[in-house]
Amino acid sequence: MEQVFSMERGTGEESYATNSKLQSTCLSLSMPVLKQAVLSFCCTDLPETITIADLGCASGPNTFIAVSEIISIMYKNCCELGRSPLEFRVFFNDLPGNDFNTIFQSLPAFQEKLQQENGPKFGPFFTAGVPGSFYGRLFPSKTLHIVHSSSSIHWLSQVPPELVDKANPVINKGKIFISRTSPAAVIDSYVTQFRKDFTLFLKLRSEEIAPKGRMVLTLRGRTTPDPTSDQSCLLWDYLGQAFQDLVAKGVVEEEMLDGYYTPYYEPCPEEIQAEVEKEGSFAVDRLEVVALPWDYVNGGINYDRALTAKEMAKAMRAVNESMIGSHFGADIMDRLFHRFMEIMAADTMEVEHVSLVVSLIRNA
Amino acid sequence: MEQVFSMERGTGEESYATNSKLQSTCLSLSMPVLKQAVLSFCCTDLPETITIADLGCASGPNTFIAVSEIISIMYKNCCELGRSPLEFRVFFNDLPGNDFNTIFQSLPAFQEKLQQENGPKFGPFFTAGVPGSFYGRLFPSKTLHIVHSSSSIHWLSQVPPELVDKANPVINKGKIFISRTSPAAVIDSYVTQFRKDFTLFLKLRSEEIAPKGRMVLTLRGRTTPDPTSDQSCLLWDYLGQAFQDLVAKGVVEEEMLDGYYTPYYEPCPEEIQAEVEKEGSFAVDRLEVVALPWDYVNGGINYDRALTAKEMAKAMRAVNESMIGSHFGADIMDRLFHRFMEIMAADTMEVEHVSLVVSLIRNA
Repeated sequence: MEQVFSMERGTGEESYATNSKLQSTCLSLSMPVLKQAVLSFCCTDLPETITIADLGCASGPNTFIAVSEIISIMYKNCCELGRSPLEFRVFFNDLPGNDFNTIFQSLPAFQEKLQQENGPKFGPFFTAGVPGSFYGRLFPSKTLHIVHSSSSIHWLSQVPPELVDKANPVINKGKIFISRTSPAAVIDSYVTQFRKDFTLFLKLRSEEIAPKGRMVLTLRGRTTPDPTSDQSCLLWDYLGQAFQDLVAKGVVEEEMLDGYYTPYYEPCPEEIQAEVEKEGSFAVDRLEVVALPWDYVNGGINYDRALTAKEMAKAMRAVNESMIGSHFGADIMDRLFHRFMEIMAADTMEVEHVSLVVSLIRNA
Repeated sequence: MEQVFSMERGTGEESYATNSKLQSTCLSLSMPVLKQAVLSFCCTDLPETITIADLGCASGPNTFIAVSEIISIMYKNCCELGRSPLEFRVFFNDLPGNDFNTIFQSLPAFQEKLQQENGPKFGPFFTAGVPGSFYGRLFPSKTLHIVHSSSSIHWLSQVPPELVDKANPVINKGKIFISRTSPAAVIDSYVTQFRKDFTLFLKLRSEEIAPKGRMVLTLRGRTTPDPTSDQSCLLWDYLGQAFQDLVAKGVVEEEMLDGYYTPYYEPCPEEIQAEVEKEGSFAVDRLEVVALPWDYVNGGINYDRALTAKEMAKAMRAVNESMIGSHFGADIMDRLFHRFMEIMAADTMEVEHVSLVVSLIRNA
């Protein structure tokens, strides 16, 4: 996972940068929660240097939005209160395969924009890229003050091991994720892996975040307790169906498909609340649901099933291509996502795109 | 300069990674000075987290050598003295055009190697990439403990402005650097730019380095007081001659060559000593000369003028291509460095490759 997974690089037609409108809308809807967390952090004793980390920053227009907001809020707050100016340090984190070169080449423009927005007295402002999985330690102890992560921690650290246990495989025929037809063992394995990963994530961050530090997480989720609801599974069912069609045509071997699962999970708010309480290092300040209409993948402006399917195929491809390519080879990609688009366009089902926004405070 | 300059990316035949043997030998000859500086820093009150920065780290086999050495020395020293284990944080810095993706993808192997060398108790160990010019602030105040830079600060922040003043240009006909035939105004402009840049570099680092912190710099230099000595100028004269030949053939416009200068300077030890004393934030602990024979560009194993010329052409190209390409276009590169190789192979002159190693202590 750590060596393979990345959003599609660069800024071209098929890149994540071009195909992340849903993530972008979801991010902007989470902004009120982020703002409140930052303002509330401003009411504590501030250190001279404020250290901010964006975990799973990817590479594209979304990369700088949250960080830019955090810095501007804190800077303005300081000015209003007549406080001495703060130094800001920002860490952009993602897996080593992420396109950091593109981020770094956009940094001068980003810095200039922040300078313009905040006036000539603003600065200094230090940035760095941190490659590595957030399921491992990334920062020295107690060095972070504000941590943000958007559209990232719905990705698991690995495929639940029960699903790929060759001696005793769990059967989930023709599916690449939880589905209504999945046996309980499949669902359990996903739930268990999510709990393990999310608890580990909280534990690691609790070591890195200074007391009273804040963490705001936005991730895909569901509003129902049932993990097999269409809300969570519909898009993965379309993709599973597209894979099955390639198997039927002899393009993909059935055995290969049987061994492929998406390392992903959409929790409901109660699961998040329970895991945070159990882990014990953080208090939940806010936990909100953001639901976007079905056609928001193309900005929600011109509703059209065919266009929505086309845009969704590109969005699904931009995030899944690295993993699918490493398992099946790159050759199947065009056919797979063309078939995904056809299946989705021909269907009439609609679900909302649900995200959860969680604002956490590190216990003192 | 900041937007354009970078070592040749990747790991191919023409990359800096493949053509940086001289820099590598020079780095290993500077190791005793680095070791002593680190051991002496170990005798001070150590913080819990040791922060190390490598400035101008490039991307290739040389990138990890110094950092690896620093960490291992400090870790072993801690073990021997029965001190509680240190956390290490390493910042790899270079201009935004540097190939950070390649560095980041090599990090897991680097971490594993350090773990193996130092045993199972070693760690944690945090890394980050910092894009930006070291002629600007890169780090928050007083946050660095050991700073290292090799084969980097002989690059100036810009071409001396007098040389490209269109209203009143200084004439240095057919040359791209200081040469024996250069008028005093050319030499003065280079000397002035070096003093300005090196003083700025020291001032910026003095803000970033904690009291008693250490800085070890290795840079190209000369042993004679005369900046027009062959020691400094011979290779640039060959390259200037190659350019003149392309002008004669109509491949390069004479006017274009008149407007091109290399933003580079090789100081002598006395110049370094004087600037450090004048700036006042650091004390010189050691200042040494490392001289390598002429043929060390190919490892110094099989002496052969033609082979040395071929290897030197590749080495010069790997560091100069980004700047030459941005001024003249990429088309001339093959012909230019082929001609460089022919000129150098046909000549009989030899000079040593001289580097200076400077070990500095931040005043308390």
